[in-house]
Amino acid sequence: MSELKGYKGKIRDFLISNKVDVGDLVKITSELTYSGILMPRYESGDEGHIVLKLKSGYNIGIEFEKIEKIEKVGEGKPNIESSETVEKDESLPKILLLSTGGTIASKVDYRTGAVTPALSASELYEAVPEIAKIANVDAEVLFSEYSENLQPEHWLEIAKKLDSIAESNYAGIIIAHGTDTMHYSSAFLSFALSGYKKPITLVGSQRSSDRPSSDAALNLIAATKFLVNTKSTGVFVVMHQNESDDAIACHLGTRVRKNHTSKRSAFQTVGSEPAFVVYEDKILKNIEKEFFSKKDYNPRISLDTKVALVKYHPGFNPEIIESLIKLQYKAIIFEGTGLGHVGKTMYDSIKSAKENGMFLGMTSQCIDGRVSMTVYESGRDLLDMGIIPLENMIPEVALVKAMWAVGNCNTNDEIKDMMLENYSSEF
Amino acid sequence: MSELKGYKGKIRDFLISNKVDVGDLVKITSELTYSGILMPRYESGDEGHIVLKLKSGYNIGIEFEKIEKIEKVGEGKPNIESSETVEKDESLPKILLLSTGGTIASKVDYRTGAVTPALSASELYEAVPEIAKIANVDAEVLFSEYSENLQPEHWLEIAKKLDSIAESNYAGIIIAHGTDTMHYSSAFLSFALSGYKKPITLVGSQRSSDRPSSDAALNLIAATKFLVNTKSTGVFVVMHQNESDDAIACHLGTRVRKNHTSKRSAFQTVGSEPAFVVYEDKILKNIEKEFFSKKDYNPRISLDTKVALVKYHPGFNPEIIESLIKLQYKAIIFEGTGLGHVGKTMYDSIKSAKENGMFLGMTSQCIDGRVSMTVYESGRDLLDMGIIPLENMIPEVALVKAMWAVGNCNTNDEIKDMMLENYSSEF
Repeated sequence: MSELKGYKGKIRDFLISNKVDVGDLVKITSELTYSGILMPRYESGDEGHIVLKLKSGYNIGIEFEKIEKIEKVGEGKPNIESSETVEKDESLPKILLLSTGGTIASKVDYRTGAVTPALSASELYEAVPEIAKIANVDAEVLFSEYSENLQPEHWLEIAKKLDSIAESNYAGIIIAHGTDTMHYSSAFLSFALSGYKKPITLVGSQRSSDRPSSDAALNLIAATKFLVNTKSTGVFVVMHQNESDDAIACHLGTRVRKNHTSKRSAFQTVGSEPAFVVYEDKILKNIEKEFFSKKDYNPRISLDTKVALVKYHPGFNPEIIESLIKLQYKAIIFEGTGLGHVGKTMYDSIKSAKENGMFLGMTSQCIDGRVSMTVYESGRDLLDMGIIPLENMIPEVALVKAMWAVGNCNTNDEIKDMMLENYSSEF
Repeated sequence: MSELKGYKGKIRDFLISNKVDVGDLVKITSELTYSGILMPRYESGDEGHIVLKLKSGYNIGIEFEKIEKIEKVGEGKPNIESSETVEKDESLPKILLLSTGGTIASKVDYRTGAVTPALSASELYEAVPEIAKIANVDAEVLFSEYSENLQPEHWLEIAKKLDSIAESNYAGIIIAHGTDTMHYSSAFLSFALSGYKKPITLVGSQRSSDRPSSDAALNLIAATKFLVNTKSTGVFVVMHQNESDDAIACHLGTRVRKNHTSKRSAFQTVGSEPAFVVYEDKILKNIEKEFFSKKDYNPRISLDTKVALVKYHPGFNPEIIESLIKLQYKAIIFEGTGLGHVGKTMYDSIKSAKENGMFLGMTSQCIDGRVSMTVYESGRDLLDMGIIPLENMIPEVALVKAMWAVGNCNTNDEIKDMMLENYSSEF
C-alpha cells in the first residue's frame, strides 16, 4: 500500500482497510454515488478529501466525512488503457504540443502514483479526451522544468524548435509551460519569432490536475479551439479569464502579467481586455491590429543576458548601479516610480552607467499606464542624461526585449531604435 | 508680460493683446461666459486651453478656439485677498497639515505665476475654501520635494514630527505628499508610529491644481472629513477611488500601491476594498479590525537602509547577490515568481547570503495573493535555505518593514520575529 501517495491519517487507514489503491477503479457511496479512478494527492493538498478521476476526464474531490463506503470495482492500469484510448482522426487540423514542464505537465500518474514531469500525447488524450475531437495532436517533450527554473537558454531552445517547424503543416502550437515565468517566455518568443506564420499559445495551469479545481484541461481545450479556428497569428498566453469555467482568455504575449499567486485567472492583459476570449465554441476578438507589425517572418533568435531590471525605491543604494557597471552589464531597464522617475541620489551613478556605454530604458513600477518624462523636472533631468522612456511597455517585457535587442545589435543606436519600434504589440 | 507662464504662441499673443496677465480676474466669452482668475500653465500642459480658477476654487480649461473675447475685470492680488480670505472657526476640530511637496503642494501661484513648492495654510484655504468649514487647520512645511526624491531620512523626519505632537489636541494629521512614493512613506509611518492615537492621512494629487481635472481639492476635503469624523486610528492614503469625483478612498497605509501612472484612481488597496470610502458626507467603513494590532503607542523611529529589494527573473545574474554581500547588506527582500520562487541558479548565492548573516524574506512579484512555499519543490528548497515567506505582504512594504526591523533589532532572530508579527495591518 505504498502507493497511496498523499493520503494520510484516517483517510489512508480507510483506503487500506477497504483494499483500494491509487489507480484502482472505485465506486464511492456518499450523498451521491461516484465511479472513477482513485487519484493520488499532493502532500500539500488538503487532507479532508478523496479525489476521483471521472470518466469525463475531470477530477472531483469527495469530502471524506460524508463517505459511506468505497468499493474497488476494477484494477487501475488495464482498465484505463481500454476505456481511455482515443482514436486519432487524421482529417482534423494538426497541432503540436511542446511540453516544457510546470504544473500543467506535472500531472500525477494515477497508475503508479508517481509524478510524471511531462505530458506525452497519449497522456494528454487520456487527461483531456475532448481535444481529440478538435485536433490531431503531436506532442513532444522539450524539457520538464518548473518555470522558475527556465532561463533565457531555454527560451532560445523553444524558439529554435519553433523556427524548425515554421514551414510544417501544423495549424498552430501549444507550449505547455509553468505559469511562474510564462509571460517572460511569451515575450521572448514574440520578439525572436517576429512574423511567425502560425499562432503560438502558451498554456499553463494554476491548479494541478489532481485537484478538483484544476484549470489544466479547460485551458488546453480552449487553446486547441483557438489554434484551429483563428485566422490570426501571434504569441498568446491562454488561461482562465475569471474564476468561472466559461471563458478562457488569450492574452497578447507581450502585454500580459501574472497578477495573482494562486487564482486561476491570475493572468491579465495590462490596461486592456484580452485579445481573444474563447467562450464555449465561440472565439470573441477584442483587438483590431495584427499581433506582429511586420508580415514577413524574420527570426532573430539570439539574446544577451547582461541586462538588469532595477526597481527604484526610496533608500535605493546607487552603489548597486556601480556594481552593474563592474559586472559589465550592457543595459538597465529601470522600474521608476510614477511617470518614470528615480531620486536625485541616483543621478551620478546613472551618468556613470551612460558613460560606460549602457543602454538605459525607463518603465514604471505602477504596471499600468505609460511613462511620461516631460511633465516634471525629474523626468526631464533623466531624459537629459540619456534615459529612454519606453512608453507603456511592461517592465518585464522591456527586460526581455532589451536582452533580445542587445543580442541582435552592434551599437547603442541600433539598440535604441529596436527598443522603440513596436514589433509585437508590446506598446 | 513676463508673467504669462506656460502660455505660448497665439494664445500668448491673444492674452498680451487683450492686456490680461496671470492672476487677473477676467471674464471670458465663449459658448458660455466665465469669470475667474487667469491661471498659468505648466510648460508641458496642452497648448489649446486657457485655464481659469472659478470662485468655487475649481479650475476650468476653456478651449482657445472657441473663445470670442477676454476682458480684464479686476487686478489679481488685492482682488483675491479680499474675496478669498477665510475666517478661522475656532470651535471646529483642529487638524495639522504637514506639507512635504509633490504635485499636491506644487500649485502654481496665480498671483506671481511662479510655482510655489509647498502649501501654506492660507494658500490651502484659498485653494480649497470648503476645508475651513470642516476643520481648523494649522499648516507647516516640512520640506518641498517631489516624492521620488524623498528618502528614508525624510521618513524619519516626518515620523519625529508626528511623534512630537502625539499629545497635542489635533484631531488628526494630513501629510501632503507626492504620489510617486507615498505608499513607501505610509508604510514606514505605519511601523514607526505603531499605536499612534490620532488618524494620519497621506494625501496626494495626480493632476496639478492648474489642470481642470485636478483631484487635489477633493482629496484634501475628503481627508479632512475623514479625520474629524472617524473614530479609527491608523495611517491611510487618501485618494480618488475611481475616475468620478463622488468617492474618495482611504487605503490602509500598508496595503496600498500606486497601480497607474496617471489616473486619479491610481492607488488601490491590494486584494481588498479600501478601508474607508468618503462618499459625500458619509464615511463608509469596510474593515473590521483596528489598523494597529497593539493599542499602546510605541514609537520606534529608526531604520537601516542596507536592505535590498531583488526581483527575480529568468536570466537573473546571481553575481548581483554577491555584490550585495560585498556591500554589506543586512537583508534582502525577494520578489519571487508565483508562489515565491527563484530559479535554481540562485541557490549558491542565496546560501552565501545566509552564511553572511543576512535576513532573507520572500514576497511575490504577482502583487496580489500570498506566497506559499510548501507547494512545490523549489519553494521547499528555499525554505530549507532559510528564506522566510512573508505571506501576502506587498514587496515594497516588506522592504520598508525590513529597513525598520533591521534598524530596531540586534539579532537575526529578532528581525525574523518582527517581520512575521502583524503590527499595522500589513498582513
